[in-house]
Amino acid sequence: MSIRRIEQTLHQFNKIGYSEDGMNRLAYTKSERKAKELFKELCESENLRVRMDHAGNMIARREGVNPTLPPVLTGSHLDTVINGGKYDGTVGVVAAIELIRRLNEQQIQTNHPIEIISFAAEESSRFGLATIGSKSMAGNFKPRNVENLKDKNGINLEDAFFHAGLNLSQVEEASRKNETIKAFFEVHIEQGPVLEREQLDIGVVTGIAAPTRLKVTVKGKASHSGTTPMDFRNDAFLGASEIGLAVERAAKAEADNGTVATVGDCTIAPGAMNVVPDTAEMKIDIRSVDMESKQKVMKYVKDAIKNVERKRGLSVHSELLTNDEPVILKQHVTSSILQTCEQLSVSYREMASGAGHDAMNMARICPTGLIFIPCRNGLSHHKDEFSSLDAIGIACDVLEKEVLKWALSANRNAIPK
Amino acid sequence: MSIRRIEQTLHQFNKIGYSEDGMNRLAYTKSERKAKELFKELCESENLRVRMDHAGNMIARREGVNPTLPPVLTGSHLDTVINGGKYDGTVGVVAAIELIRRLNEQQIQTNHPIEIISFAAEESSRFGLATIGSKSMAGNFKPRNVENLKDKNGINLEDAFFHAGLNLSQVEEASRKNETIKAFFEVHIEQGPVLEREQLDIGVVTGIAAPTRLKVTVKGKASHSGTTPMDFRNDAFLGASEIGLAVERAAKAEADNGTVATVGDCTIAPGAMNVVPDTAEMKIDIRSVDMESKQKVMKYVKDAIKNVERKRGLSVHSELLTNDEPVILKQHVTSSILQTCEQLSVSYREMASGAGHDAMNMARICPTGLIFIPCRNGLSHHKDEFSSLDAIGIACDVLEKEVLKWALSANRNAIPK
Repeated sequence: MSIRRIEQTLHQFNKIGYSEDGMNRLAYTKSERKAKELFKELCESENLRVRMDHAGNMIARREGVNPTLPPVLTGSHLDTVINGGKYDGTVGVVAAIELIRRLNEQQIQTNHPIEIISFAAEESSRFGLATIGSKSMAGNFKPRNVENLKDKNGINLEDAFFHAGLNLSQVEEASRKNETIKAFFEVHIEQGPVLEREQLDIGVVTGIAAPTRLKVTVKGKASHSGTTPMDFRNDAFLGASEIGLAVERAAKAEADNGTVATVGDCTIAPGAMNVVPDTAEMKIDIRSVDMESKQKVMKYVKDAIKNVERKRGLSVHSELLTNDEPVILKQHVTSSILQTCEQLSVSYREMASGAGHDAMNMARICPTGLIFIPCRNGLSHHKDEFSSLDAIGIACDVLEKEVLKWALSANRNAIPK
Repeated sequence: MSIRRIEQTLHQFNKIGYSEDGMNRLAYTKSERKAKELFKELCESENLRVRMDHAGNMIARREGVNPTLPPVLTGSHLDTVINGGKYDGTVGVVAAIELIRRLNEQQIQTNHPIEIISFAAEESSRFGLATIGSKSMAGNFKPRNVENLKDKNGINLEDAFFHAGLNLSQVEEASRKNETIKAFFEVHIEQGPVLEREQLDIGVVTGIAAPTRLKVTVKGKASHSGTTPMDFRNDAFLGASEIGLAVERAAKAEADNGTVATVGDCTIAPGAMNVVPDTAEMKIDIRSVDMESKQKVMKYVKDAIKNVERKRGLSVHSELLTNDEPVILKQHVTSSILQTCEQLSVSYREMASGAGHDAMNMARICPTGLIFIPCRNGLSHHKDEFSSLDAIGIACDVLEKEVLKWALSANRNAIPK
């Protein structure tokens, strides 16, 4: 019974790094390594050929009838955030293993090789760098300037690679940029509330939003909360409040473009009951699959900042931390997945991904599809993260049918019907 | 030359506890003790009889022609906040010493005794308790439940008393509640910007605002900043922003009553770039000399909170930390000071004090006057705190003339002309 097998495999992975506070399999740690070794073991018992590349990605290959045809890839990641959930990443790896098991069971031969992948270091929690594995595979990771990034225990990235049996200086050899890859598919939990609320089985991702991030520092003047009349104040917190509400208004105005914007943090100084705040430091995160929409939000927020500066006698400094381009997934891939959903009578919608994924890097080097499954309350990066086995099972069905379409096709380039 | 004498005395005190970051003479520390010993020495050289009471207040008495008449008191405090200024408190003590020197120089005999006081522990910086000395003198300080309050080094109040040569269990003996006191006057820097901006010499305080303090906790739901649509959010920071702006609006509407309100701190959790905040904890401070006006502000803020809860799906918990009654100074005392200003051709205004002072406690047991002098930019509790020697000199003139009015009068109760 496939559902029980999925459940069991998920459980096998989630025994590794389990704690009451959540899953801990941080990038390039012993527990991530153990999870990848389990992946290797499970793949080998399905007669796949397994290798680890120079970025620490585990790649298991099921040979095709024609080994010279470009491979179809699928997979996700086994590393987690600190006190993370059991589904983020892991589900996509389990779905990939399940795919192989089903093909083996049914003794299906595909023209194209199929490779299932457990990407290394998708989460940024350890070194502040996300998707190191897939970035490396996409030929888009340079080890220079990051080798000395340290985790909270003071271990730098270079040493972390070394302890994981890797050599950071060779990471660029993981690149498959110059290789033809038929397609890549990833199954992942949505990490948002939309599918659950709309009671849909599958989200077919059309684009992956990229963040524009700002650090905004509002400077006013500290003064005594009892002795400073209201109209003599330059209160940094009140300025930050107005900027925060403007961020929300700007994103709401762009809701049709799926744009969101968040003030994730605001720290106040000096932060005493009896002192008018002189500093507020805000972290602002704007995401969209539509670059123009992000720019509209930015413009609105900047205008609001100018207004707040003038009105309140504050000075505001904005630092652009990142301004990434969204990734639009190729339409022939998303159309193909939509068709598969139709064929399987699975309910679905097209949607943007607000979070980054390995698929976002793979899309740079091959046709890429990203398949979302609902998760409870949209909760992720938390011990209570949950997706039902039913939902995972449906995604496995979609993945199987979709991968087969691409892997069975006889030629190198044709778009599957 | 009186100005030079004032300057020199101020400097003598401010050599004690001086650092580049500001003055440090915290309550019941060695440096506060040293400052009080200097006070004692300076008073004794003016032939005053000096004693320390059970709260650590230093009291220096200049005998009256009729020692049975109630004494006229004046003074302030020598303790400072952490990295405080050179004027807050100290100026009032120096003005009191200057008063005695002038009377001695002029060989003026007063019917009433005059006592000058250096109050202990006016600032709350060490134990979170303000005006311990004057509260004790007013018979309004109970050592129960506070003896175990600890400073940041883990020393409790009881031990701090012990190290200062005091016994906390005897502190109530400092009470002068049952004694007749002719009047008390305090000279203090304004710690606000009003006198400077209006280019006035003296502020005659009519009432001392009392704080109403709230801790307001806004609870929402943490969610992923990229995957949660704007209308699916319960963002605690945005709720706090709206509450903060409502606090400001409420206080501005009560500006005519001198009411002010401040969000001094707002801490956000979890406080990450990519997470919609689930918690905001706000510290709100509302001050007025008009209790009704404070209540109006409270009502407005509470209505705003209810509105924010409903609109944003947040839950807000408010905890009332303090809700003190303002102190209104007796009108015959303020009128007398106003008259003195007129007589000296000193420019002045009546005003409320937004900060607490020793005078606020003394007002419970005797007619009390509080005289403000301008300070640069309204800055206080800071190493750059500054009042000019001219401003201090003018206050000394007002204090001298005013104290003499009360101390020269022949009878026990009459209001001086």
